[in-house]
Amino acid sequence: MLNHQANLDGVFRALADPTRRSMVERLSRAPAGVTELAAPLAMSLAAVMQHLQVLEHSGLSRTENRGRVRTCRIESAALNLAERWIADRRALWERRLDRLGEILAEAPAPAPAPSPGRKKKS
Amino acid sequence: MLNHQANLDGVFRALADPTRRSMVERLSRAPAGVTELAAPLAMSLAAVMQHLQVLEHSGLSRTENRGRVRTCRIESAALNLAERWIADRRALWERRLDRLGEILAEAPAPAPAPSPGRKKKS
Repeated sequence: MLNHQANLDGVFRALADPTRRSMVERLSRAPAGVTELAAPLAMSLAAVMQHLQVLEHSGLSRTENRGRVRTCRIESAALNLAERWIADRRALWERRLDRLGEILAEAPAPAPAPSPGRKKKS
Repeated sequence: MLNHQANLDGVFRALADPTRRSMVERLSRAPAGVTELAAPLAMSLAAVMQHLQVLEHSGLSRTENRGRVRTCRIESAALNLAERWIADRRALWERRLDRLGEILAEAPAPAPAPSPGRKKKS
């Protein structure tokens, strides 16, 4: 449980930065080398590596070294964890809205105002 | 677009803390007063107020003041924004996996090894 919490902390913190989100977006399309990841970003390779490290520590990405080639991949499990956490909270408030709807539906309808032309049956 | 990015930054940053997540969880069940929100948390009311401020700035919660009563509510739109961002990235990599599956399915099946008892039709 503590681990799960720690992971959520890291995943959400990693996603709180637009550069890292753009890297996650890129890696969701296909694995990429570090220079490929860095190409569209207006920052030094060192800065890109730092962002990449945050993504790796959070579990959002994984880097494989084959000789001198580093390939970064997305780790879907970490994104799934975050998505599930949000979806579970959404389920809570949707259930609450459903309950409110039921309460309103079960409430007795307000009595119609007596119309002047209507007569009581005797 | 810049605003959308800024919102995502704030929402993900707000969710990167276990105390704030527990407050979002509580508010997803029902609106609550500040003291109600603070009750299960082992921290000062001032610290709770700071967390609440982060949630409000990110758009995850809203506080209404009626006289001396403050009621906090969840703002589902902010959570929806974060959920949609993750779901859109998931859609990207699922599409990629589907494409890989198609490529594998379309690849010519390996030729069966000639069986010793089979004869060519003449």
